[in-house]
Amino acid sequence: MSKRLVHTPEGVRDIYGLEYAKKLAVQNMLHDKFKEFGYKDIQTPSFEFFDVFGKEIGTTASKDLYKFFDKEGNTLALRPDFTPSMARSAAKYFMEETLPVRFTYSGNAFTNTSNLQGKLKETTQMGVELFNDNSLEADAEMINLAVESLLSTGLKEFQISIGEIQFFKGLCEEAGLDEETEYELREFISSKNTFGAEELLVSKGLPKDKIDVLLSISDAFGSLDVLVEMKNIVKNSRSLQAIEHLEKLYDVLCLYGVEKYVSFDLGMLSKYNYYTGVIFKGYTYGVGDAVLTGGRYNQLLSYFGKDAAAIGFMIIVDDLMIALSSQKIAPECEPEGTLIVYEKSNLKDAIVKAKELRKNGTIAELMEKATDKSKEDYEAFATNNQIKEVVFL
Amino acid sequence: MSKRLVHTPEGVRDIYGLEYAKKLAVQNMLHDKFKEFGYKDIQTPSFEFFDVFGKEIGTTASKDLYKFFDKEGNTLALRPDFTPSMARSAAKYFMEETLPVRFTYSGNAFTNTSNLQGKLKETTQMGVELFNDNSLEADAEMINLAVESLLSTGLKEFQISIGEIQFFKGLCEEAGLDEETEYELREFISSKNTFGAEELLVSKGLPKDKIDVLLSISDAFGSLDVLVEMKNIVKNSRSLQAIEHLEKLYDVLCLYGVEKYVSFDLGMLSKYNYYTGVIFKGYTYGVGDAVLTGGRYNQLLSYFGKDAAAIGFMIIVDDLMIALSSQKIAPECEPEGTLIVYEKSNLKDAIVKAKELRKNGTIAELMEKATDKSKEDYEAFATNNQIKEVVFL
Repeated sequence: MSKRLVHTPEGVRDIYGLEYAKKLAVQNMLHDKFKEFGYKDIQTPSFEFFDVFGKEIGTTASKDLYKFFDKEGNTLALRPDFTPSMARSAAKYFMEETLPVRFTYSGNAFTNTSNLQGKLKETTQMGVELFNDNSLEADAEMINLAVESLLSTGLKEFQISIGEIQFFKGLCEEAGLDEETEYELREFISSKNTFGAEELLVSKGLPKDKIDVLLSISDAFGSLDVLVEMKNIVKNSRSLQAIEHLEKLYDVLCLYGVEKYVSFDLGMLSKYNYYTGVIFKGYTYGVGDAVLTGGRYNQLLSYFGKDAAAIGFMIIVDDLMIALSSQKIAPECEPEGTLIVYEKSNLKDAIVKAKELRKNGTIAELMEKATDKSKEDYEAFATNNQIKEVVFL
Repeated sequence: MSKRLVHTPEGVRDIYGLEYAKKLAVQNMLHDKFKEFGYKDIQTPSFEFFDVFGKEIGTTASKDLYKFFDKEGNTLALRPDFTPSMARSAAKYFMEETLPVRFTYSGNAFTNTSNLQGKLKETTQMGVELFNDNSLEADAEMINLAVESLLSTGLKEFQISIGEIQFFKGLCEEAGLDEETEYELREFISSKNTFGAEELLVSKGLPKDKIDVLLSISDAFGSLDVLVEMKNIVKNSRSLQAIEHLEKLYDVLCLYGVEKYVSFDLGMLSKYNYYTGVIFKGYTYGVGDAVLTGGRYNQLLSYFGKDAAAIGFMIIVDDLMIALSSQKIAPECEPEGTLIVYEKSNLKDAIVKAKELRKNGTIAELMEKATDKSKEDYEAFATNNQIKEVVFL
């Protein structure tokens, strides 16, 4: 026996009682919403061949994966996110399909990192993926669904911030940055280190006007106006097309009527390297990071042998629960059911009563009256365990 | 790009479309049933400290665990079954509670073995655990719930076979077997190797009458009669008490009205060493092994510092699905929802139509009409994807 044994490893946790009931309620709300839009459930294994999350895929760094071996000596990894597995499945099972295919998933993902500042290493993630559709309308459906999903959980004050990865890529191309410099710059901008970014660009001998444009993207966030502003500053067609795409996207989002939940951030980059177009994050208060992240990844499927467009997003349910709780809008889980406390001699009556209640859809929990317990003990138990009423037989 | 990458590692698989819809439907049925009896949801991490599944616990052998390290150098293991985690949680969060506590869980468990003959290495398991209740009535509730759970999924032809671990232990004690011999004998009996068992007992110099009794337990299965028969053969009080316990249990199961689903097997042993009393397995046809296993484990919680009785069972959902499918009684998932195929110029109308349908609780999937696709293509898509109707706008 070891006292330490009752603890979970650092970064993972148990969840039970009312807290878990609320989490399951939110999961059901999200699932219903995804289903309403025609997304079909899929389940992939918790671990995959290591290469599915390899460097070329552009997902989590190898050092942050939980890796282990099967008996055949293959290296396996617990999934750090679902998108590579979804892309693999789409390629495998819908190789010949050219019409849009919609997946939704729900499950746990794992990140083996030691510097997540109180962040969970195992999180429940729910998300959607739309394959074979490269249209503006697909981008709009995704962002509309992101808004509607969060609304369905009771969240009211949030913003879906939208960027376009091609905007940044166009600027880098225009400035003639090599891939490595682009990568370094991305890190600086992601971590809001403008000084580091400037130093890097100066060291590369870039002219001041190009440096200014590249640095200005850190501040290029806000309402539709920011797109108009940046259109006047950038010159290259790749970045301009990215802005125009966002403007058209906004028009479709207006058709959906969700424009008030939307803002733009041209400096938005992602830790996932697989995004190729629109990227977006959902922010609310009460939680440190985005509760929702998504984007377009048109090249990932080719890694698995299928040439297909794709866009998706995922919600970290645990983070969303923190936000809902701190905003005091987590779903109410009212006490329900009946605790039947019976004397040993009344077992038969208790069973009959329980059957009757259950038949009518009521929860019925049976408990033999212990000689050392009072009625008040059972009433307190019922209160503590969200049970609506107690009957004594 | 690698062709091999689209495959999952051996022993794990993807599940999608109608097959997954049916599995989720069955999971909901089981969850509703567990809830009806007052069991409360709990979620524990997918991995734990290795010691939680250690040798003393009597769960899966270390060589069959998926083991890996966290950044602090601790050895972690993916759970091979949920019971040790449930026991840990009960000890941690209900240390002071003395009234019965009910848990239910649903999630995946992992066994890293190379000789599972087509068996999955990652399975979905759903189960219940009842702590702090050592009564006959608790045993009966568990077995009744096992029956009702399987019935709730549509299964009709199945048997819950019940044994009592103390029956075997009493015989071993009476024969004066040491722990190691008991363990070896158990392996022989579990694998139906009567010859090996006999050879072992002869080599230990046991008298013929004792050997005969020990060997007879392999055939000690069937209806209530088998209990009466064995009562006349065995002498030691531990085994006799075990039989009497099963007889009384049968009486309570008659009160529940589930006696026709029940049979007895005094030779039943378990690969899990933590069972201390009643053990039971649910068998049906169309699948090789038991779809449901359970039993009483009154010593496991003490490993986590709480002295408490416990009983539970779990269902391997994947195996149950195989049985339901081969019996052609898996739940029907009727096509549902509307596929809205729209011309680009009708986007606004399509969005309005989709919103209206979703508001009324109907699934609405939007798809822009591609120039190279016919109406028939979309109708075929709808049929293949369980969508009820197609409207063209």
